[in-house]
Amino acid sequence: MAQKVVTIGEVLMRLTVPDYKRLFQTVNFDVTFGGSEANVGVSLAHFGLDSTHITALPDHNLGERVERFLKLNGVSGEGIVRKEGRLGVYYLETGAMQRPSRIVYDRFDSTFVHLKEDEINWEIVFKDASWFHYSGITPAISQNAADITLRALKEAKKRGVTTSGDINYRRNLWQYGKQPLDIMPGLVELTDVVIGGRVDLENCLGIQDEDWQTNCDKVLKKYPHIKAFSKTVRNAMTASRNELSGLLYTDGKLYTSKNYDMKNIVDRIGGGDAFMAGLIYGFLNLDPQETVEFGVAASVLKHSTIGDVNLSSKEEVEELVKGDNVGRLLR
Amino acid sequence: MAQKVVTIGEVLMRLTVPDYKRLFQTVNFDVTFGGSEANVGVSLAHFGLDSTHITALPDHNLGERVERFLKLNGVSGEGIVRKEGRLGVYYLETGAMQRPSRIVYDRFDSTFVHLKEDEINWEIVFKDASWFHYSGITPAISQNAADITLRALKEAKKRGVTTSGDINYRRNLWQYGKQPLDIMPGLVELTDVVIGGRVDLENCLGIQDEDWQTNCDKVLKKYPHIKAFSKTVRNAMTASRNELSGLLYTDGKLYTSKNYDMKNIVDRIGGGDAFMAGLIYGFLNLDPQETVEFGVAASVLKHSTIGDVNLSSKEEVEELVKGDNVGRLLR
Amino acid sequence: MAQKVVTIGEVLMRLTVPDYKRLFQTVNFDVTFGGSEANVGVSLAHFGLDSTHITALPDHNLGERVERFLKLNGVSGEGIVRKEGRLGVYYLETGAMQRPSRIVYDRFDSTFVHLKEDEINWEIVFKDASWFHYSGITPAISQNAADITLRALKEAKKRGVTTSGDINYRRNLWQYGKQPLDIMPGLVELTDVVIGGRVDLENCLGIQDEDWQTNCDKVLKKYPHIKAFSKTVRNAMTASRNELSGLLYTDGKLYTSKNYDMKNIVDRIGGGDAFMAGLIYGFLNLDPQETVEFGVAASVLKHSTIGDVNLSSKEEVEELVKGDNVGRLLR
Amino acid sequence: MAQKVVTIGEVLMRLTVPDYKRLFQTVNFDVTFGGSEANVGVSLAHFGLDSTHITALPDHNLGERVERFLKLNGVSGEGIVRKEGRLGVYYLETGAMQRPSRIVYDRFDSTFVHLKEDEINWEIVFKDASWFHYSGITPAISQNAADITLRALKEAKKRGVTTSGDINYRRNLWQYGKQPLDIMPGLVELTDVVIGGRVDLENCLGIQDEDWQTNCDKVLKKYPHIKAFSKTVRNAMTASRNELSGLLYTDGKLYTSKNYDMKNIVDRIGGGDAFMAGLIYGFLNLDPQETVEFGVAASVLKHSTIGDVNLSSKEEVEELVKGDNVGRLLR
Amino acid sequence: MAQKVVTIGEVLMRLTVPDYKRLFQTVNFDVTFGGSEANVGVSLAHFGLDSTHITALPDHNLGERVERFLKLNGVSGEGIVRKEGRLGVYYLETGAMQRPSRIVYDRFDSTFVHLKEDEINWEIVFKDASWFHYSGITPAISQNAADITLRALKEAKKRGVTTSGDINYRRNLWQYGKQPLDIMPGLVELTDVVIGGRVDLENCLGIQDEDWQTNCDKVLKKYPHIKAFSKTVRNAMTASRNELSGLLYTDGKLYTSKNYDMKNIVDRIGGGDAFMAGLIYGFLNLDPQETVEFGVAASVLKHSTIGDVNLSSKEEVEELVKGDNVGRLLR
Amino acid sequence: MAQKVVTIGEVLMRLTVPDYKRLFQTVNFDVTFGGSEANVGVSLAHFGLDSTHITALPDHNLGERVERFLKLNGVSGEGIVRKEGRLGVYYLETGAMQRPSRIVYDRFDSTFVHLKEDEINWEIVFKDASWFHYSGITPAISQNAADITLRALKEAKKRGVTTSGDINYRRNLWQYGKQPLDIMPGLVELTDVVIGGRVDLENCLGIQDEDWQTNCDKVLKKYPHIKAFSKTVRNAMTASRNELSGLLYTDGKLYTSKNYDMKNIVDRIGGGDAFMAGLIYGFLNLDPQETVEFGVAASVLKHSTIGDVNLSSKEEVEELVKGDNVGRLLR
Repeated sequence: MAQKVVTIGEVLMRLTVPDYKRLFQTVNFDVTFGGSEANVGVSLAHFGLDSTHITALPDHNLGERVERFLKLNGVSGEGIVRKEGRLGVYYLETGAMQRPSRIVYDRFDSTFVHLKEDEINWEIVFKDASWFHYSGITPAISQNAADITLRALKEAKKRGVTTSGDINYRRNLWQYGKQPLDIMPGLVELTDVVIGGRVDLENCLGIQDEDWQTNCDKVLKKYPHIKAFSKTVRNAMTASRNELSGLLYTDGKLYTSKNYDMKNIVDRIGGGDAFMAGLIYGFLNLDPQETVEFGVAASVLKHSTIGDVNLSSKEEVEELVKGDNVGRLLR
Repeated sequence: MAQKVVTIGEVLMRLTVPDYKRLFQTVNFDVTFGGSEANVGVSLAHFGLDSTHITALPDHNLGERVERFLKLNGVSGEGIVRKEGRLGVYYLETGAMQRPSRIVYDRFDSTFVHLKEDEINWEIVFKDASWFHYSGITPAISQNAADITLRALKEAKKRGVTTSGDINYRRNLWQYGKQPLDIMPGLVELTDVVIGGRVDLENCLGIQDEDWQTNCDKVLKKYPHIKAFSKTVRNAMTASRNELSGLLYTDGKLYTSKNYDMKNIVDRIGGGDAFMAGLIYGFLNLDPQETVEFGVAASVLKHSTIGDVNLSSKEEVEELVKGDNVGRLLR
Repeated sequence: MAQKVVTIGEVLMRLTVPDYKRLFQTVNFDVTFGGSEANVGVSLAHFGLDSTHITALPDHNLGERVERFLKLNGVSGEGIVRKEGRLGVYYLETGAMQRPSRIVYDRFDSTFVHLKEDEINWEIVFKDASWFHYSGITPAISQNAADITLRALKEAKKRGVTTSGDINYRRNLWQYGKQPLDIMPGLVELTDVVIGGRVDLENCLGIQDEDWQTNCDKVLKKYPHIKAFSKTVRNAMTASRNELSGLLYTDGKLYTSKNYDMKNIVDRIGGGDAFMAGLIYGFLNLDPQETVEFGVAASVLKHSTIGDVNLSSKEEVEELVKGDNVGRLLR
Repeated sequence: MAQKVVTIGEVLMRLTVPDYKRLFQTVNFDVTFGGSEANVGVSLAHFGLDSTHITALPDHNLGERVERFLKLNGVSGEGIVRKEGRLGVYYLETGAMQRPSRIVYDRFDSTFVHLKEDEINWEIVFKDASWFHYSGITPAISQNAADITLRALKEAKKRGVTTSGDINYRRNLWQYGKQPLDIMPGLVELTDVVIGGRVDLENCLGIQDEDWQTNCDKVLKKYPHIKAFSKTVRNAMTASRNELSGLLYTDGKLYTSKNYDMKNIVDRIGGGDAFMAGLIYGFLNLDPQETVEFGVAASVLKHSTIGDVNLSSKEEVEELVKGDNVGRLLR
Repeated sequence: MAQKVVTIGEVLMRLTVPDYKRLFQTVNFDVTFGGSEANVGVSLAHFGLDSTHITALPDHNLGERVERFLKLNGVSGEGIVRKEGRLGVYYLETGAMQRPSRIVYDRFDSTFVHLKEDEINWEIVFKDASWFHYSGITPAISQNAADITLRALKEAKKRGVTTSGDINYRRNLWQYGKQPLDIMPGLVELTDVVIGGRVDLENCLGIQDEDWQTNCDKVLKKYPHIKAFSKTVRNAMTASRNELSGLLYTDGKLYTSKNYDMKNIVDRIGGGDAFMAGLIYGFLNLDPQETVEFGVAASVLKHSTIGDVNLSSKEEVEELVKGDNVGRLLR
Repeated sequence: MAQKVVTIGEVLMRLTVPDYKRLFQTVNFDVTFGGSEANVGVSLAHFGLDSTHITALPDHNLGERVERFLKLNGVSGEGIVRKEGRLGVYYLETGAMQRPSRIVYDRFDSTFVHLKEDEINWEIVFKDASWFHYSGITPAISQNAADITLRALKEAKKRGVTTSGDINYRRNLWQYGKQPLDIMPGLVELTDVVIGGRVDLENCLGIQDEDWQTNCDKVLKKYPHIKAFSKTVRNAMTASRNELSGLLYTDGKLYTSKNYDMKNIVDRIGGGDAFMAGLIYGFLNLDPQETVEFGVAASVLKHSTIGDVNLSSKEEVEELVKGDNVGRLLR
């Protein structure tokens, strides 16, 4: 039986301006979908895992569109609640060369904001689950969303499910009256694997030092149950070229992945989520060094396709880890 | 100097599913823009009039996109306020044959909802104006929007500007605590030309009879200042074929236009607004029979192009009124 | 619990020349998928039924593409076998006006041809099933395909599942050594509802008269277990305009549906399968007159969208049966 | 050996605004090519005849584009002269419903205008030819073009080749100092089959009566060598719907074709040229009644595909003449 | 009040072959518009300046298309003359890798060629202007165009408006009987800022040395009123990668900008005009070093979007000058 | 008179997933055509040579599509046999960055497999030929295909035509019962120029060493009639970046070309065939060093356009050999 991962979070419609046009001149949009945690779930489904995503979607045909997106990417519908409301949207103007990519969000007051704990069938969602994952975006959206994240963590812990949190800090969110420090520490207490950089640790946990590893150690003092920390290191020269590597800190050791030079980037959105999914796959199946290598290779492949989600199979990631096939024409 | 028309209302982005696809299967959207009153203003600009539209748009690049749309269609930017907020959107699934077109609205809490009276420079907007037009949609959106409509009518009357109102009743709106009967009568008191069918007269003015003309007479008793009533008569056999004619009731006489058989309809959205714009042009320049003919012909041409706004020139409408050029290949 | 329908048959990739171009000049293809029986299954899934389709697909990424198509249209994957082989393809040049549509098939020796009885998990596929449907196309493909159809009928009968067969005769198939009369009678012996016109009855059952109803009576003499006969009556004036109605003959009575005038046809492929799906829904839920009306209305709606499968919901079909909403703009 | 037809005339690039958009709003163009006489040549090539077109094209890559267009449509390159100059262009805004199609020409001073008689290898071009065709457009372009048309007619006559002229009158041309009456009579003296309506006969030959057949008789008095007259009768209700039939007057008898009701017209440009090509095929192979039927059926099929040229085979036209296959789905 | 810039010159339609196809194989074109001086005007409008462009456009709908392009990009219509004639066109085949981009011009005898001095309302055009800009292309087109450039310079000087000239030498133009040395010196006498490289100085002013700065000094001897010289330095490795920097020579000092490595170039057309616009903005608002940095950064951003005109705001250019945001994802 | 080259081989339809999408998510395909030997023939036609390709194509409209492709690219139809059967297809998922391109073949049992020797008019095909070229793919397809390759070589030799063979080894083919060593030696005995790398020499000729040149020497011992060996050296860093150079070994000397750094690769399919065509052009017209330079430059340019065939002219290749124009904008 396949391993099963549960994720939770809002799914947005992404409307991308095609052909390197500016948003103010566009006459059409390409439609894709994404959300940090759903991206992780989809990616794991492409690796062959069972994947269940907890979310709320509008009860009209645009909500149907998103549900179809999730299903065709292998995510089960058991965690999806359909109810009245609007779909969150973000507009993406893809950068090129020295011109950065720009996002305009239109996500406030979406259906997900109003999702309530008792609308989820927790028994079904967590049945046979091996892993639960959330991100710092969900608790930043609304009190409902923060509550349901905490509830999901408790449901996971109750069943012995390993948990991970990508505690990314989004300045534009957190507009419902709470601050990260009000909420995030309570979530981290139930979290086994923490993903986050220096800025995230500072904003979400109030821990701050000049160096990531030192920060992790400080976090560990406060939350000794945490089993691993991780983050990507991205060196973004231009919109078209980035370097990427990953760090994994566990059992007192720092594991560093290969550094990839990514030229001719197709789409960098969701790169971090692809890394996260790779990590989860690794924690479930690989040793630490293999895990961080798998995570970064997954993220690199994500940059080669359009959309927020990684469309690579486990085998394709493994090939890149080994360096096989790069630049080849596979017949 | 060209005649000048002032309009007021929200402008929405329309995201259309291309190629007769369903909303739940789309991978891209065509982008156009519209709003009942802006459609009237754009249409009049295409007829050669000066056109100023009062609206509020987001201060980000998507708002810029809408402002560019209005300007390139000949509408001046003097009535446009740019401020923080979101852009209202509607999704259109175009019907065909026996399958009806379907719209999903996502327009709540848009920037326009928060437009305030004192953000408009009334002097500049109404300078040299000949006509002011509003619709029943704007006061249905929010108290702010109702207030600003009333204020605009007062500003118009103060300057001797003729006024028209398309008092269409939209059941899905009116969610801010007021009902049409709370607001619309006060607006109609300042309105010279009223466009609306039986259902609209009933819902907005509380006047109800089995026959439109009788209703108009009843309205006239209560609002004797009204100079004319008008409406279109649409017989919609399928999504692809409608019949259309217009009625104009003024000075105690009923003027009926030619009836057009519209087959192979390209896009019917905005057909009523195109009629309205044709009427306004007619009131300013033609006799009653010519006016209703011009209005309906304008509406018919609107059905032959994509988007909410009529892209026909005055000359093209006149040609259709005369029956010239239909079916010809103009070299 | 939703009613469950099982179907069996090959799924082909359809490559459509866009924009009314000819096949010999195309520079791109639109990609959709279909197959007579899968079309029925997908349509029933859109009506809200559980749907399981038995088929074989290639083990490479193009097979994955088809599997995703089925799943996102609500068909479960339990009946899908992935194995080495090629995907059957057909090329469609869409007609217009007096120019007929043309299909070029490239379906020989596809993966489905090699599907074997014991590759299917019959227990899972037929668990809780209410209905089983096949068509005359499958037994025309190969001996394997004929065998597996017979096996499926037996598995259905064993479990008391109602069965239907669209015994359409395809002259270009039947190239593996058997003729329809060798195979089809054996299948019809296990079939409760038979769909087919005069030509089909003649070719598949060897029964021939000048009138469909008389033919049905003759078939009934030989196969008295048959509960109902049905067929559509299509009057195809041009590629763009057809008339369509349906006949249902059951319990000695002939039920005739409304006749629809379909102008501006978007895509007629799969119209018969949409009728079939409507019939099955009707047999499970409606009386005979309602059933044939539902079937024809479903077929009419199919003609308004692109692709082989009907994308309409049960509610949309019901609205058309009642004549509601036709020609309206639903907000 | 296939029959061979020679044609002469300018080939223009047609830039079509897609999706029923207006020219003043387009962001892209579809590219096709056409010219009255080349359309005839291409159509005959699709019927299986050998086809040689005399024209001049720019020596740059856009000229190469046109040459490739002609060759891939079966026209030999022997009559093509490549030299310095520009390519004539026309912009097409496709009409719909009551909105007429509009063309903007940009054809002055093109390479073809400067084509000289001695740049053509007349021996090769007319080797084994059975028919020569020209139109009234070429002599209307420039003195060079008029001269070369006359020369071609003489070369044809010298070799016993049958000749036809579509003496269509284009008001916007004839700007080089000559009028139709200065040139056309000299050409008609060498023409065996004359295509033209009342207005054409009046403007090109100075012969005028209220009735086409009477006019033809008058022309015959002056030019008794003419073997046949023909024209189409088009009743254009809207841009989307026309009726079409053909007349052929020969040996003192008037042959009238079936009248076709063309709904859902895809593209009417080149409809007359498709008729002309059908006539030529008919004169070479059929009796008069068959000829006019073949011509009109060819023209009807032209209306069902995009571009100036008819893409139908001889067999497809024959099927339409017989009424076979209309509305069918050919597998 | 915003600063106002006046520019003069032809605007061409650019028809671009999409998807790295060759011109001789294209089936569609992307439509954009440009012209050296209009590009400068549009760019300055995007920086927030008032912009008026003097040009002539055809009176048909394709001319309307260009006028809409200018207006939607913020350029006022006061300098636009609509009159009979054709629109100049150029065809662009975009290069990639080691394959260079290729342009085919079709610009002769356009409407602009026939623009006359007295068709311009000089009072309105130059009202409140701060800067006037022309290029060496306009006087190379026709005597009319040379005359009107000189007249514009005089009108500018009369009002104390600063003037700049991009004296680029285009070998393919200058076909109306005059040579650059007949015309350009007269224009430079009224020009405050001269943009041009060695080859331009040689061809337009007859001044030649092995080194640009030395040449500038020689020019200064003859035209001591010139306040500044400038040019870009482009190192074009391939169609996809160029290096770019700028030089500004003023008050006896040479200011050199940062050198940018531009990989993954999207569209280099108009790069020089974007630099020019940046310079003008700088002369009006910045010190010399800032000016050349602003110009080059503007040009770099131009390379990241499609079309001849720079679509970047002043703020975006400033960010690039500071190095902010490069490679970031701006939320 | 132009030199004439004869090639032989299957032509496949290539269906490319656009926009860097994965095959399992595509909704449309771009259509191009190719086959190793036809690619060589088309490329030589673009260099100005006469080109005749021997192949078999289906007798339906998809076969017509391929024939039109060949003709519009300058290949004569004299070697094309149209007969019943299917068209071979391959699906291409274009890689990017570290993600490799992937091909799915669907080419078995195509029309070409059944082409017979006596269906070719050898006299006409080889009339005035200077060169004959085949590849190792054709004899790997079927016994018929192997036989016809041998026959073509004999027909060439009989007429003194120089012969070349690209003896590439394709593991997935050779499924009809023969192995390369059964067939290829017999072909090489009639081959003057052999293209192939170490792996090809080993598999096709059974000759194996650690070094290519040493291998060539061994082959020469066995087949002393061979005049030249050649191959490309490709260093494929990623899907977007490769380095390419060429080796030519003739008369005991090794000629090495420049090494090109190809960044931003548009399409690498057919790169080897473009090299081959360049070699043939070189052998017919240039000295050895020029030949290998011409071949590699041709291959580099191939990488800059979409599709299997090189669309560059002889002049464009020569410019790249000289290093002219790279990075320029040619007006």
